[in-house]
Amino acid sequence: MSTILDRIASPADVKNLRAELLPVLAQEIRDKIISVTSKNGGHVSPNLGVVELSIALHRVFETPKDKIIFDVSHQCYTHKLLTGRGGERFEGLRQTGGISGFCNRTESSHDAFGAGHAGTAASAALGLAVGRDRRGSNENVVAVLGDAALTNGVTFEAINNIATSTKKMIVVLNDNEMSIAKNVGAIAKYLNEVITNPAYNKIYEDINSFLKKLPSGEAMAKLAEKKATTAKAFFLEASSLFEYFGFLYLGPIDGHNIALLERYLNYCKTATRPVLLHIITKKGKGLDVAMKNPEKFHGASPYDIVTGESTAPKSDKPVLNWQDVMGKSLLKFAKKDGKILGITAAMASGTGLSYLKKELPGQFFDVGIAEEHAAIFAAGLACQGFKPVVAIYSTFMQRAFDCAMHDVCLQDLPVTFCLDRAGLSPNDGATHHGLFDIAYLRCLPRAIIMQPSDENELADMLYTSINSGKCCFIRYPRGRAAGVEIKEEPEAIEIGKSKILFEGNGKVCLFALGNMVETAKKVADILAEKSKIKASIVDARFAKPLDEEAILRMAKSNKLFVTLEDHVVAGGFGSAVGELFMENKVRTPLEMIGWPDKYIPHGSDVKALREMFGLGESQIADRILKVYSEI
Amino acid sequence: MSTILDRIASPADVKNLRAELLPVLAQEIRDKIISVTSKNGGHVSPNLGVVELSIALHRVFETPKDKIIFDVSHQCYTHKLLTGRGGERFEGLRQTGGISGFCNRTESSHDAFGAGHAGTAASAALGLAVGRDRRGSNENVVAVLGDAALTNGVTFEAINNIATSTKKMIVVLNDNEMSIAKNVGAIAKYLNEVITNPAYNKIYEDINSFLKKLPSGEAMAKLAEKKATTAKAFFLEASSLFEYFGFLYLGPIDGHNIALLERYLNYCKTATRPVLLHIITKKGKGLDVAMKNPEKFHGASPYDIVTGESTAPKSDKPVLNWQDVMGKSLLKFAKKDGKILGITAAMASGTGLSYLKKELPGQFFDVGIAEEHAAIFAAGLACQGFKPVVAIYSTFMQRAFDCAMHDVCLQDLPVTFCLDRAGLSPNDGATHHGLFDIAYLRCLPRAIIMQPSDENELADMLYTSINSGKCCFIRYPRGRAAGVEIKEEPEAIEIGKSKILFEGNGKVCLFALGNMVETAKKVADILAEKSKIKASIVDARFAKPLDEEAILRMAKSNKLFVTLEDHVVAGGFGSAVGELFMENKVRTPLEMIGWPDKYIPHGSDVKALREMFGLGESQIADRILKVYSEI
Repeated sequence: MSTILDRIASPADVKNLRAELLPVLAQEIRDKIISVTSKNGGHVSPNLGVVELSIALHRVFETPKDKIIFDVSHQCYTHKLLTGRGGERFEGLRQTGGISGFCNRTESSHDAFGAGHAGTAASAALGLAVGRDRRGSNENVVAVLGDAALTNGVTFEAINNIATSTKKMIVVLNDNEMSIAKNVGAIAKYLNEVITNPAYNKIYEDINSFLKKLPSGEAMAKLAEKKATTAKAFFLEASSLFEYFGFLYLGPIDGHNIALLERYLNYCKTATRPVLLHIITKKGKGLDVAMKNPEKFHGASPYDIVTGESTAPKSDKPVLNWQDVMGKSLLKFAKKDGKILGITAAMASGTGLSYLKKELPGQFFDVGIAEEHAAIFAAGLACQGFKPVVAIYSTFMQRAFDCAMHDVCLQDLPVTFCLDRAGLSPNDGATHHGLFDIAYLRCLPRAIIMQPSDENELADMLYTSINSGKCCFIRYPRGRAAGVEIKEEPEAIEIGKSKILFEGNGKVCLFALGNMVETAKKVADILAEKSKIKASIVDARFAKPLDEEAILRMAKSNKLFVTLEDHVVAGGFGSAVGELFMENKVRTPLEMIGWPDKYIPHGSDVKALREMFGLGESQIADRILKVYSEI
Repeated sequence: MSTILDRIASPADVKNLRAELLPVLAQEIRDKIISVTSKNGGHVSPNLGVVELSIALHRVFETPKDKIIFDVSHQCYTHKLLTGRGGERFEGLRQTGGISGFCNRTESSHDAFGAGHAGTAASAALGLAVGRDRRGSNENVVAVLGDAALTNGVTFEAINNIATSTKKMIVVLNDNEMSIAKNVGAIAKYLNEVITNPAYNKIYEDINSFLKKLPSGEAMAKLAEKKATTAKAFFLEASSLFEYFGFLYLGPIDGHNIALLERYLNYCKTATRPVLLHIITKKGKGLDVAMKNPEKFHGASPYDIVTGESTAPKSDKPVLNWQDVMGKSLLKFAKKDGKILGITAAMASGTGLSYLKKELPGQFFDVGIAEEHAAIFAAGLACQGFKPVVAIYSTFMQRAFDCAMHDVCLQDLPVTFCLDRAGLSPNDGATHHGLFDIAYLRCLPRAIIMQPSDENELADMLYTSINSGKCCFIRYPRGRAAGVEIKEEPEAIEIGKSKILFEGNGKVCLFALGNMVETAKKVADILAEKSKIKASIVDARFAKPLDEEAILRMAKSNKLFVTLEDHVVAGGFGSAVGELFMENKVRTPLEMIGWPDKYIPHGSDVKALREMFGLGESQIADRILKVYSEI
């Protein structure tokens, strides 16, 4: 039997639905989201929270003419289902060749602006609104942002500019009292006070009955203009934070009531100054396991719908994820040294800092989605003699690049940055891959950049960094670590020292960084199988400073020098080795293996994406054989 | 006759001064600042505005035990004069070997945190405060920030975290209604309403007489605690913006009244939650020409004290600065094409966008010191079919790096970034040199990076970028352009095409980027004089994409290939050429000339700094001769 959702080909079909069918549609959408994400993984909780909002938006506005910009855009699944990306296309969510888990301008004209990082929606929306004003057209521009976006500086930069730049723009503040973890800071406290105000329920009822009497949003607008004072009284006193920024503040209202949302959004359309509509939603609504554990289900691997347990295939032996190795090691060191402090930008669980948070909460800081503040705050702590460790995804470190330069490295402050997800974040795609960090960090004087090849090296590097008195960046990928047995005590590593794992027969040296050591070993096996090459294998350990002595020696004693890195070639680790070759007028050919100068899309897994770009193990081996044959 | 200032060796001497001598001291400090900056240049207006505040801070607090963090720290001159850096040391302000124009942790223990970029003070101060709390010590932590810092996202990220993280921290909001240009946005409007409120003068008088009756800050604190309601009534209703962020808000008060400032600051010391003290100052106070033109005197070249005219030596013919070439060209193009829009982050004058602002204000946007928002806002405008040009200093582009990656290049949006001050900002020093942009941008797929060698090439590149439909970055240095005659009409340049200026005798090829073409010509002259080398000279034009064909051809036809760039070697233009060499197994030696892997300090001028680091023309020539002799 076909569902209502099956018959939605475009937003026009949503508009034509009778109101009483909307809750049925909402339920079908939830079922679809749960069914697909339980197989493909995805941002479960944020999407289940905005089903009604997305339906209401598409009933009130006319995309692609009207522009709806989703902050982070990890809550776009309903929007995608309603804009021609349902059915089989939705089954391919986050898979190779399938639709993205985020908004993407190349995927649909209904996606007005792409995103994957938080805090950009208000800013982009203002650009679209000011462009509209200048063009003289009249489309609506709506930015949908979570309360967590208010912990992010970019949102404030935009909000400071909106009311003085345009008369017509709508911000929907989707307040679910969560960022990825529980929200932090003064704004979160303020919003919590607003929604827990005992006056709220009463006022909510009053507004509701008031609005129900009105024939349409336009009439309401007229009434509101006439009786501004009366209308004002319907809204909470505490609304005024946003009034300071020049917004007409409306709310808070129930974000799961489609009729109410429609009435408010219709009213917003007619407002003569920017409006902020504050709605309250429940993250994970409709899935018990997600409501009980919204942090885990923020971005989840494939899961069992009933138990919530991960259904990802288990390996024979229990192998920790890199983030857990970091988190557990940090906890171990922090127990012995009270000067060690862990800092996250709303990613305690994703970065493994949750271990520290749980056992040593006094040494743990979550600053909200505020990467710049996280880095500068850490610099301040370092000035007081502490040993701060900022755990952050490589792609989000891009936000704090200036802080790394201006506040940390320039001032020679001992801050350790743990760059998680350095490499691919396969299902998320281009916004989340961490493929640029070596390039943008190695230009900074004093920066020390390293990458471990296994669990013990990560623990050693963390231990080394924390006690080095220097600014260090440790990068490591998403997913499972190497699976080696974990030793008891960490050892300090000499800064800038590589480790020769195998001395070959003087033909090819594989100089590999981090997780590419494992790849190098497999490549060496293939080379040995296919040719007379017994490749030397070196665990580079450091992207900066380079082990110059070892590199020059291996370059001299081999016919071909190959660098391998899980990073773009442009400006990366191999590029740094190239500079060393040039400076020393080394004549040995250098083959740099890494990601090409392209944005890498999402895909089902790392293996699939690597093979798509010629980075499969046998592809690398073949490439080396070809180059070797030509020299 | 020795002055009072001459006898101030440390803050203790300031504390011991009788109150009636303080205005004399303030006047002497102003005289000193004017005298030295009229010779050395410097941040005149911001420093003249905070003389009294700095005196009061040093009378109330005990640095280095107490921590005073100045935002941007371009207002630290009085602080420096009072902390052992007066007399002759102050005469060397911003000169080679002299003291820095900014706070610097290596220069003095009284400089608690260095800065040169805006918006970091609150964040760093919170790190220092939380570190203190955890250590259990009791020093005071004071962040001094201008109202412009409130347009910057980092400040908000910090402010959102302060009240929920510590009970003891002071923020002094120095409100002079200016950032560098006139301030923008909702917060500026709000602050303006606060200080122009007719209630202000009356309330100010009331508070003043109230405070005068009190024997000390401590007594006042007790009284305030007892009579919280009464005390509250002294302060303006409109104070509550900061109250939402959990601050005790005090003010606004006269920031030029030392006694009043002392009383308030003493009270702040005793507060049991974070305090924001709002003071009103006049930028440029005490120097007529600066008060009349605070934007020009924000950061000024040497000037005549009476007329305000620049006293920098004039060249024989009038040569425009790069920023003026950009600004005038942009205005010319924008007059013909209404889709061209200029965007600045509070730097209309410094970037040359002031021409557009003046003649085509509808095509000009100043978003405040909000680089991230500037870039994303531009991306939004591009989505509406506009051709936005973001004019920004190279060093401040670091703030918008993630936006360049995530919002612009990834989405393939046609935004042009004009990176001014790419190269040295000699008097400002390490925080302001723009030496990293090629490295952090060339790793981004789709980024087009170019640098003109003269005025016409800049106009051509701007014209090319704006109409390319691509994301382009045009970098150019501070100061005078090449001085060529300026042609009427721009021409489109083929993307990725270099220009051979001189074909030599097959020995050395000088492949130079931007302003280094001029250097290359002089180096070639020296080489010709000292040896038989007639070097080829190529104007590279593009750092990305490279002119691969020309590079490979010149590499083949010369014995030594030399790249020259006004940028660090690590990851820079030469490094990109090195990658091309490696990929093509080119055997020609490559010598990469550029800045070393060090933070370059401030100095009197570009020439002095270049020679300090081996980049003088004859030094480069000698280096090339040596390398050439060894191959």
